[in-house]
Amino acid sequence: MPDTKQSPLIPASALADHATPSSAWIVLNNVIWDVTDFLPAHPGGAAVIMQYLGRDATAAYNEVHSESLVSRHLDSSKRIGLLDPDTLDAEWTALNAPPSSTTAAPPILKSTKPPLDAILNMHDFAAAAEATYSPKAWAFYSGAANDCLTHAANLVAWRDILLRPRVLTGVRNVSTKTRVLGADFSVPFFWAPTALARMAHPEGEKAIARGLAARGSSLCLSTNSSFSLQEVVAELPRDYPVMYQLYVNKDRAVTEAHLRGIAKLRPRAIVVTVDLPVVGKREADERIKTDVAIASADNLQQKVEPGKKVGGLARATGGFIDADLRWEDLAWLRGITDIPLFLKGIQSAADARRAYEAGCAGIYLSNHGGRAVDTAQPAIIVLLEIQAQCAWVLERMEVFVDGGVRRGTDVLKAMCLGASAVFLGRPFLYAVGYGQEGVEHAVDLLRDELETAMQMCGITELGQAHPGLVNTALVEGRVMREEGHPFARKIVRARL
Amino acid sequence: MPDTKQSPLIPASALADHATPSSAWIVLNNVIWDVTDFLPAHPGGAAVIMQYLGRDATAAYNEVHSESLVSRHLDSSKRIGLLDPDTLDAEWTALNAPPSSTTAAPPILKSTKPPLDAILNMHDFAAAAEATYSPKAWAFYSGAANDCLTHAANLVAWRDILLRPRVLTGVRNVSTKTRVLGADFSVPFFWAPTALARMAHPEGEKAIARGLAARGSSLCLSTNSSFSLQEVVAELPRDYPVMYQLYVNKDRAVTEAHLRGIAKLRPRAIVVTVDLPVVGKREADERIKTDVAIASADNLQQKVEPGKKVGGLARATGGFIDADLRWEDLAWLRGITDIPLFLKGIQSAADARRAYEAGCAGIYLSNHGGRAVDTAQPAIIVLLEIQAQCAWVLERMEVFVDGGVRRGTDVLKAMCLGASAVFLGRPFLYAVGYGQEGVEHAVDLLRDELETAMQMCGITELGQAHPGLVNTALVEGRVMREEGHPFARKIVRARL
Amino acid sequence: MPDTKQSPLIPASALADHATPSSAWIVLNNVIWDVTDFLPAHPGGAAVIMQYLGRDATAAYNEVHSESLVSRHLDSSKRIGLLDPDTLDAEWTALNAPPSSTTAAPPILKSTKPPLDAILNMHDFAAAAEATYSPKAWAFYSGAANDCLTHAANLVAWRDILLRPRVLTGVRNVSTKTRVLGADFSVPFFWAPTALARMAHPEGEKAIARGLAARGSSLCLSTNSSFSLQEVVAELPRDYPVMYQLYVNKDRAVTEAHLRGIAKLRPRAIVVTVDLPVVGKREADERIKTDVAIASADNLQQKVEPGKKVGGLARATGGFIDADLRWEDLAWLRGITDIPLFLKGIQSAADARRAYEAGCAGIYLSNHGGRAVDTAQPAIIVLLEIQAQCAWVLERMEVFVDGGVRRGTDVLKAMCLGASAVFLGRPFLYAVGYGQEGVEHAVDLLRDELETAMQMCGITELGQAHPGLVNTALVEGRVMREEGHPFARKIVRARL
Amino acid sequence: MPDTKQSPLIPASALADHATPSSAWIVLNNVIWDVTDFLPAHPGGAAVIMQYLGRDATAAYNEVHSESLVSRHLDSSKRIGLLDPDTLDAEWTALNAPPSSTTAAPPILKSTKPPLDAILNMHDFAAAAEATYSPKAWAFYSGAANDCLTHAANLVAWRDILLRPRVLTGVRNVSTKTRVLGADFSVPFFWAPTALARMAHPEGEKAIARGLAARGSSLCLSTNSSFSLQEVVAELPRDYPVMYQLYVNKDRAVTEAHLRGIAKLRPRAIVVTVDLPVVGKREADERIKTDVAIASADNLQQKVEPGKKVGGLARATGGFIDADLRWEDLAWLRGITDIPLFLKGIQSAADARRAYEAGCAGIYLSNHGGRAVDTAQPAIIVLLEIQAQCAWVLERMEVFVDGGVRRGTDVLKAMCLGASAVFLGRPFLYAVGYGQEGVEHAVDLLRDELETAMQMCGITELGQAHPGLVNTALVEGRVMREEGHPFARKIVRARL
Repeated sequence: MPDTKQSPLIPASALADHATPSSAWIVLNNVIWDVTDFLPAHPGGAAVIMQYLGRDATAAYNEVHSESLVSRHLDSSKRIGLLDPDTLDAEWTALNAPPSSTTAAPPILKSTKPPLDAILNMHDFAAAAEATYSPKAWAFYSGAANDCLTHAANLVAWRDILLRPRVLTGVRNVSTKTRVLGADFSVPFFWAPTALARMAHPEGEKAIARGLAARGSSLCLSTNSSFSLQEVVAELPRDYPVMYQLYVNKDRAVTEAHLRGIAKLRPRAIVVTVDLPVVGKREADERIKTDVAIASADNLQQKVEPGKKVGGLARATGGFIDADLRWEDLAWLRGITDIPLFLKGIQSAADARRAYEAGCAGIYLSNHGGRAVDTAQPAIIVLLEIQAQCAWVLERMEVFVDGGVRRGTDVLKAMCLGASAVFLGRPFLYAVGYGQEGVEHAVDLLRDELETAMQMCGITELGQAHPGLVNTALVEGRVMREEGHPFARKIVRARL
Repeated sequence: MPDTKQSPLIPASALADHATPSSAWIVLNNVIWDVTDFLPAHPGGAAVIMQYLGRDATAAYNEVHSESLVSRHLDSSKRIGLLDPDTLDAEWTALNAPPSSTTAAPPILKSTKPPLDAILNMHDFAAAAEATYSPKAWAFYSGAANDCLTHAANLVAWRDILLRPRVLTGVRNVSTKTRVLGADFSVPFFWAPTALARMAHPEGEKAIARGLAARGSSLCLSTNSSFSLQEVVAELPRDYPVMYQLYVNKDRAVTEAHLRGIAKLRPRAIVVTVDLPVVGKREADERIKTDVAIASADNLQQKVEPGKKVGGLARATGGFIDADLRWEDLAWLRGITDIPLFLKGIQSAADARRAYEAGCAGIYLSNHGGRAVDTAQPAIIVLLEIQAQCAWVLERMEVFVDGGVRRGTDVLKAMCLGASAVFLGRPFLYAVGYGQEGVEHAVDLLRDELETAMQMCGITELGQAHPGLVNTALVEGRVMREEGHPFARKIVRARL
Repeated sequence: MPDTKQSPLIPASALADHATPSSAWIVLNNVIWDVTDFLPAHPGGAAVIMQYLGRDATAAYNEVHSESLVSRHLDSSKRIGLLDPDTLDAEWTALNAPPSSTTAAPPILKSTKPPLDAILNMHDFAAAAEATYSPKAWAFYSGAANDCLTHAANLVAWRDILLRPRVLTGVRNVSTKTRVLGADFSVPFFWAPTALARMAHPEGEKAIARGLAARGSSLCLSTNSSFSLQEVVAELPRDYPVMYQLYVNKDRAVTEAHLRGIAKLRPRAIVVTVDLPVVGKREADERIKTDVAIASADNLQQKVEPGKKVGGLARATGGFIDADLRWEDLAWLRGITDIPLFLKGIQSAADARRAYEAGCAGIYLSNHGGRAVDTAQPAIIVLLEIQAQCAWVLERMEVFVDGGVRRGTDVLKAMCLGASAVFLGRPFLYAVGYGQEGVEHAVDLLRDELETAMQMCGITELGQAHPGLVNTALVEGRVMREEGHPFARKIVRARL
Repeated sequence: MPDTKQSPLIPASALADHATPSSAWIVLNNVIWDVTDFLPAHPGGAAVIMQYLGRDATAAYNEVHSESLVSRHLDSSKRIGLLDPDTLDAEWTALNAPPSSTTAAPPILKSTKPPLDAILNMHDFAAAAEATYSPKAWAFYSGAANDCLTHAANLVAWRDILLRPRVLTGVRNVSTKTRVLGADFSVPFFWAPTALARMAHPEGEKAIARGLAARGSSLCLSTNSSFSLQEVVAELPRDYPVMYQLYVNKDRAVTEAHLRGIAKLRPRAIVVTVDLPVVGKREADERIKTDVAIASADNLQQKVEPGKKVGGLARATGGFIDADLRWEDLAWLRGITDIPLFLKGIQSAADARRAYEAGCAGIYLSNHGGRAVDTAQPAIIVLLEIQAQCAWVLERMEVFVDGGVRRGTDVLKAMCLGASAVFLGRPFLYAVGYGQEGVEHAVDLLRDELETAMQMCGITELGQAHPGLVNTALVEGRVMREEGHPFARKIVRARL
């Protein structure tokens, strides 16, 4: 809770005069803030805030942010005072009744949520989340780009790789211990950076982090997380190894300041997302879009431009991303901090090679869970492409993989084919519906599946995983073996 | 509205004597025309008119034609006069009540038609059209040949090509500008020639053309359009670049006169359709066939011949096409006008090469939206066949592609693989259900999708598209790499 | 009607003494026959007759046989006399009430049978047949072996071959004329030999033959036809070219006599079926099996043997086939008649070559419509196997193909790939539900489809069909390119 | 029934003092046993017994075990006496009412169980079992690991291999005789080792064995069978050839003693299962898990450990398996008995070769019916892998195959590709629902299918089966042709 001692009490009636972009006040957890200057810099876009000018934005804010976040973005000069509770009349209450679409998730019907020990796998967690999360949260978490073809392909690709178990190797004592990022973990799988976990559970990323650490796993926290990295690491044992995902802001100074702050917390890696220069169209999300766009356009007396992009929560929260980030900018980032730099969203062997040449510590093969460009090839296909074209990359960098991982066998296959670690996004967002305990159960289930798969394939340590244990015959036909297109040499288009 | 000043008033009773092929009058928008000589030359076939001899054909005519069309096909000597409104008794009214199947679309139930801003993609437009268009219009637009296998394959082929995005190239400013046909457009996609847009909206092609031009796109107008090219260009800015699709008439003199008239309007290309020497069987269309054939056979006292082809609207409107057009006839066409000649319906590398040798300015790969011969290979397969067999064609001619394009990613894939421009047919027929505004929204959606796909793949101009951005591994197995069949050299059939 | 003048009248009560295998009488169309000696020679097996010993078998007989058939198999000495109509008391009537399962098809509900001109393709005929035929007839006609996988594969294989149309070749005048078997036909497709057409229509094969001949097609009559070849040719113009399908009987003398009789009618080919040495298990058929087996076992006081094969109509009618027919027996057949010999059921390139070496005039690639061994490869795959391994066979013999042909495009593809003619079985069994007119309509539809496909592919005569018009990329991966298995040279099984 | 003469009568009240692990009595079929020492050695795990301490466990015991089993595992010193029937009061009865989940299968509704002669194939047996077995039995029998992908792939793999029948070879007399394990059998297919047949039928393995032997087939009895090998062979003719499946116990001495006992019965092969070092997660099974785990944890005052594996019947019965068995342990097994040793669960060519080098008499390709590690490759793919990599193995060892075999054609395909014999598990568990007669019917159906398939493919003895009779084009694309991965040579991971 912010310190409220020295604050003047402001009557509710005073807010009416500060409900325009040129003088913009909002109420958050009883504190009145002046957001006039902050409006264009809001990572989630100005429109989200604008509909609350001169009003109480607490419900919408708390749904996705920790209470403390605002005081780190706005200095005390922007803190106008406390809303005087004795001045809240019926008019104010009516004005500030949150629209139904921004209220918290409806009360969970206990009858539809199975007990945790009836959850046997990641699919069960997804079913429980679909049954109990708010439609907006489910749409935001589960959605993917356009026709969701890449999202589906991610899931299928793992299934189409078969196992070739070896027998009689002695597998009583099996270990899933993994050394990555210079640290030791109990398992080789981690939480992929995903935004706004507070929509799933009030403790959001904090509960996820505690659950993962309790089981020897870890997370890569999203720039768009509900809780800040500082808040999250405060939940963990001292120096517990974590990663931080970074979107570079259009205002490079913002990113620079932000990164310097992050660096003080010494995450083991800065994972720069490079596959989302703009936010794609996630149609499930957009179909549930709030009245944000319309409301804010009304407030601003703006006309909706012909051809302008409207979007749901995903686009709203991605508007600040710098679409102009380039390979040469990596030097700038590396000048800010010496924390190892990873690139997330590598989708071709050519870029894998280039990342190595650019001095990255590692790469993270991902198509953003099918949320970036639809029909992008699955990460496991990219991994095979790398092996076919430049396998030496796998010896010289750590290579992370995500997308569609749902089973311990999926994890094992990725390790056999050269991944250093595997990430899961949605499954932990669904597990945290049960709080920390749900996350721990998810790790337990996956580790059990992985251990069993390792034993049945005849290995006892992940270092023994090798390509000979998988049958990739079905998926090899989907891999481009050469960097260029096989027809490329024949095409000399005049316009090129 | 035709000028009616000098017209005599004709009593309704006079029409009864002109209800036979040897003296054939019909009423169109209150004007009585003598169509005796025109009957065999009607592009839609004589049968369609014959059921209205001595009667009022206005409803059926207006459903598919502009009011002005008749006065351009029939000179004033055929204009008998005006129907005297004071002579229309109950008998006449009963006789001329339009059969239900030829009335205009039933009133649209507003509840089933979503608001335009709820339309997020081309699929939504199709769903809206299916819910609101007349069964006849929907069957005619949506139908394809026989088992609709090629129609389905067209859609799937794009989905089976995957993207290989490149990252960190700096993509803030993206442009979909396209130069084709010597003109500059805002986007690389256009409206494919499709017939009879007036069944979708009273303004038909006029609304589509205005909407496209407002967004920097354009169209290739069909010979079978509801409005003439003259009417359409009148809606557009002066000299706005358009194309014209041509079916060559069995009566070459008709085509020659028609083409000379068209040439005066200076379209940028004459696109001769070559994949439909006869009209295929579109069974959805035929199941909703009107009573035209039966009615006209009754009127003519004809017996339906054994084995004769009966058909729906598609076959009725295609009966005039010359099935005997040959490569050597292209010289004749090029003698009529110097407007660049394109061939639409090229479906093999061999014919692509031959079109170049025949002096065409370009080719248009198409299987008529699956409406010509069923199980024909998709256009994108033909494009890959051209690359495998004679990629040089792509350097020397403009190459258009259509069939199954529904997403910006589809457009990008076509451009990566060498297309100069991409065409969509049905989606704009469905969008125009919302009038010009619907068409503009369709372009906006597609351009947004295309821009996003380009940015996410790491390019900012279409000239940067190249085959290395696509993974065609899945579809290459469907391409014939050699002109002949791999077995062809082994087969020496005695009968050949 | 058989001549009944000189026949004595026999009282119904006399039959009770002739109801055992050692003295077996039955009544057929009021005539009493002694079938004691004929029982073991009945092509449909003794069991079918045995349940009617001492009873009236007319209903069951007429359902599948012509009335005249019996008098050709049994000489006049077996004709006991006429059943005296004045002796038919209530007991007799009760005894001879046909069981419901052997009565004719239930009255057709007109509402479920569409009018013939609403039938647009072969699928429509099948739907009409399913709705109107007796369950027994539908199961017998539509069924296939075991899991019906080959039946499904037959249909799919045609669809997976794509067309590569050529344009601008001038296709106004198209002809489907075909010369095969030394005769000229209007179309290249014929009726495949299928059994017992009388279950579909009282005129059975007679109506089919008349309909085909009226349209310039023809048929290959089955040994198991309801009407004899003599009866069928009597319906056709003099010397109209037909084929005859032959199953070789376990009693070679029966076949020899039968074939000599057939030869007098001069069919253009004797088509010996070689893919059905025993009758396979058609489970749909067996699930509807009549009480034949049980009833006859009861009558004979037989015990059903452990492990004995029981079956439906298919197995009942196939019991007489000689499973021991060998290549060397072909000389014997050729010694009986000089009519050209074809082998039906060739399923490998090796056997195609061997048929040529054995002096056959042609081969007929077939898997018996999926009714022989399930998971056998489709005929079109065999055709491609022949092209890959011994394409010269196609130059030296006529090659027929059947299995899954439903569209004119299927016919065209077969011709492009080297077939001399194409056969359809089930579609004509379904068309004849409408009598001769239905068969004519079926030919009209298929010819229309074929003509349209030819024109759209750029050819005007079937002699112009060639492999370059088809894209077989998808199905070539299903073809064994070498006679042996690619692994065969590596396997030296000890037991071989 | 055990001999009860010299037993003292024990009052029910005495059991209350022996209801803890430190003094553990249970009642089985009226006999009171002291299981204190036996608890940790129970093959099914201690937990299953623990919930019955001081109580009557007869119902649960009889459901899966023969009555005699206990007296072979516990010597007479553990036999406390007989339960005094006069002391069974209401309290005891209430205490010992079996929970519904451990009662025998509910009474079978005759209406849902088809008569045996309506069972036409293995699918019908499965449907009958699903309709009539207890949910627990059905889940245990039908379930497979995780997403059941391997289980499904097993079934599909056979279907994707096509047949290439040869004709005119003379096939009247066909024989399915098979010589394997030095013995002659009537058919080449046998019962795969599966656990606990008594849940399907009170006579369990005894009925199966009698049925198989009556038809000239045989079985490989499971270590986890309901009846012991001694009990089973007692049902068979003297010296009838059978096999015995062995799981090696964590306590090697137990296995040594057990194997010496088994060896006296002279099975033809000891088939050591090597694909299940630990028991996989069968989720259908776990969803129906009994209250065993919870109940026993309650009794023991244990806390459920975080991350501990809980499981259903499968895991409960597999807890004793030694996960540390190694290639070098095979010498130990061969030192115990000279009965030929087979390895079951070989899943790669590399291990097939190694088994030969280790002196095994044969190998058994299996993925445990999809119950071991999910997404393991089907056995038929392993067979093709062996042919591609080390076909000589097939000449020097007997090679068994199971997984997904449901049809005679499947059996024939396996034999064509080099299998010595084929095994089916679930189908016989479903057939025995009809008792011995059901098993005989199953063999009859399969033999009929196999004979028919052989005849239709042109062979009369299994020794004539050869790879040229199958078209494996579709499945060859799923086979790894080289021992390592094609990319393996390129990957030199630092961690390896």
